[in-house]
Amino acid sequence: MIHTAIMGYGTVGSGVAKVIENNAGEIRKKLGEVLNVKKVLVRRFRDCPYRSRMTNDFRDIESDPEIQVVVETIGGVGAAYEYTKRALLAGKHVVTANKQLVAEKGCELLELARERRVHYLFEASVGGGIPILHPLTECMSANHIEEIYGILNGTSNYILTRMVRNGASFDGALAEAQRHGYAEADPTADVDGLDAGRKICILADLAFGHQVNPAAVPMEGIRGITLRDVRIARRGGYRIKLLGRAVRLPNGHTAYVAPHLIPETLPVANVEDVFNAIIVRGNATGEVMFYGRGAGELPTASACVADVMECLTSQQWTVQWSPDTTGFRDPAELATRHYFRIDGSLNDALRAFGEVEALREDNETSFLTECVSGAEAAERAKGLNVLACIRALS
Amino acid sequence: MIHTAIMGYGTVGSGVAKVIENNAGEIRKKLGEVLNVKKVLVRRFRDCPYRSRMTNDFRDIESDPEIQVVVETIGGVGAAYEYTKRALLAGKHVVTANKQLVAEKGCELLELARERRVHYLFEASVGGGIPILHPLTECMSANHIEEIYGILNGTSNYILTRMVRNGASFDGALAEAQRHGYAEADPTADVDGLDAGRKICILADLAFGHQVNPAAVPMEGIRGITLRDVRIARRGGYRIKLLGRAVRLPNGHTAYVAPHLIPETLPVANVEDVFNAIIVRGNATGEVMFYGRGAGELPTASACVADVMECLTSQQWTVQWSPDTTGFRDPAELATRHYFRIDGSLNDALRAFGEVEALREDNETSFLTECVSGAEAAERAKGLNVLACIRALS
Repeated sequence: MIHTAIMGYGTVGSGVAKVIENNAGEIRKKLGEVLNVKKVLVRRFRDCPYRSRMTNDFRDIESDPEIQVVVETIGGVGAAYEYTKRALLAGKHVVTANKQLVAEKGCELLELARERRVHYLFEASVGGGIPILHPLTECMSANHIEEIYGILNGTSNYILTRMVRNGASFDGALAEAQRHGYAEADPTADVDGLDAGRKICILADLAFGHQVNPAAVPMEGIRGITLRDVRIARRGGYRIKLLGRAVRLPNGHTAYVAPHLIPETLPVANVEDVFNAIIVRGNATGEVMFYGRGAGELPTASACVADVMECLTSQQWTVQWSPDTTGFRDPAELATRHYFRIDGSLNDALRAFGEVEALREDNETSFLTECVSGAEAAERAKGLNVLACIRALS
Repeated sequence: MIHTAIMGYGTVGSGVAKVIENNAGEIRKKLGEVLNVKKVLVRRFRDCPYRSRMTNDFRDIESDPEIQVVVETIGGVGAAYEYTKRALLAGKHVVTANKQLVAEKGCELLELARERRVHYLFEASVGGGIPILHPLTECMSANHIEEIYGILNGTSNYILTRMVRNGASFDGALAEAQRHGYAEADPTADVDGLDAGRKICILADLAFGHQVNPAAVPMEGIRGITLRDVRIARRGGYRIKLLGRAVRLPNGHTAYVAPHLIPETLPVANVEDVFNAIIVRGNATGEVMFYGRGAGELPTASACVADVMECLTSQQWTVQWSPDTTGFRDPAELATRHYFRIDGSLNDALRAFGEVEALREDNETSFLTECVSGAEAAERAKGLNVLACIRALS
């Protein structure tokens, strides 16, 4: 019998216990032994089948030599960070779905794991149950990764889908998402791009081999998206989606989160509701897309349990990245087409940008620019009365 | 320096040499050493930068103790099978894109590799550069796999896309595919479902843990698809795609290849041209889709090179399946909706099937049945004058 502990018993933590229980046969066949949840770390005890294994003292896990793997689902950087370090120091593998901790402290924790010859695995931190970090670092390891982009937050994608399909306003769609349990009472991390931002940082760390600090990554959410822009984009053959993007540049790399107009013919434009999709462009494979439910109790938990199994069967995981943050460039340097809606005429737009693709003109004018850097777009638009500006994927 | 050999120097073989050359920096960073192609096994010598390393004698590779990994891109089961066995016996890792060999002899070759404590890896055999076998067996290892289905052959998908979009006939679209180099002069393996069939066998082997013999798997291609059915399906909100499917049943599992009507709202219905998509349904993750170019020189080659790198860095790969073929059921047992076009009236259809969804009625009648097994659909249709019968994904 192999013993594990779960730290935190919220949605993901209790899901991990469920997956280990429900798929015990499958897991035993692959591990050759029974996988057992020996301890569950909680703040407050509560009635459930795991009541007798609950503890509120981390030392019960830390000092138990039988526990080989710890699943951290506490979230945040405080206690999760401290307990992860101590568990690694105690020679235990640690598996997590905690994107904030990995984005901020992953580099250091991987280094510590390497010193102690244990694993620190976090497949579940990006894309929930969608396999992405392993395929990126293993199956695509013979590629030079040029770009990763994707719909990394299901809540904001659900809201945008409602706005596009049903003509709902942002506030109306958010309320609907909250009714369905897709959005939390405080939706900030989801709709303001922070959740997607942490995920794109982890993807960028792995793709480019350098720490990308979340604090340096501009994160724009979907609060500014109006129904008017959604409709104009749609008539022009575009969908508006919140994308995280990590792009290799000639002189380094960049990462950011922002809404984008996406040509409706691209598969990612048709990723709807709470689904996520991550596209990786390698210089040999071209674009590869990974698609599925990016969150949820069982998908995320099953990714954690797969990592637990990997800790127990694999001798090494070669993932690491340098703490050196050099090479990170301001995404304002990145050239894309830009969508503008201005209080002005098409002639105003032409004067500012030279050629543009007009999308709509009445009392306002909407258009798409040629491919220009964010900085140049801002500079050229200075004389215009800008009502909306959104990057296009081009 | 780490030495490899390439056996066969066609599209994939020469692609492997190119990827190793083009991405030498990336590969060296990850391996810590330079990866070198020391020998290339060919039947006929020819002028190219690798001319001096070419040999037509397998023993030059077999007996070279410096060669640690052999990439087999010969194809087929004859020489490829013999050389693979001998390379494994000589203690060398073997990596391949050869789906026929893996589908027919994979179980035996994996067993031999295990005995010799070397790897036999074949990520490139399914989906070309799309990561699928590793994600399935590693990232989704805590799941009970319920079903795998997908568009596994780019050539036939290209032909169907032309038929749907441009109203081309099968013959016209095939000729176009051949002009573009997407179809070979003899397109049999692609359009008759054999290529997709070998891939679904490999996926089924891995998902269900038992050998699924290609000879037992019904493989139907796209030659029988008429423009008429494509149009009727389209008007009813369906696309026709060639799917490989591997499904777990209450009493075992089944696998087959056949055209299917797919509701246009499903992401897989919008996979066009030469793209492939593989959907895996796990009991915890739900459906996860992997999408990209399923063939081509560099994508396939880069998957081979990633496997080479894995051979050199990973201690063990836990993949195996039982040679025991029990549990395989005739796909005629599998219930789905069925599309019929008959020379007859809607009343004829209703008499045979009870409730149906009528799609079109003029001198012929097209309709979708309720969910029934293939065997039952055939039985009930006995009295009808059937012009076309296609399964629907439901």
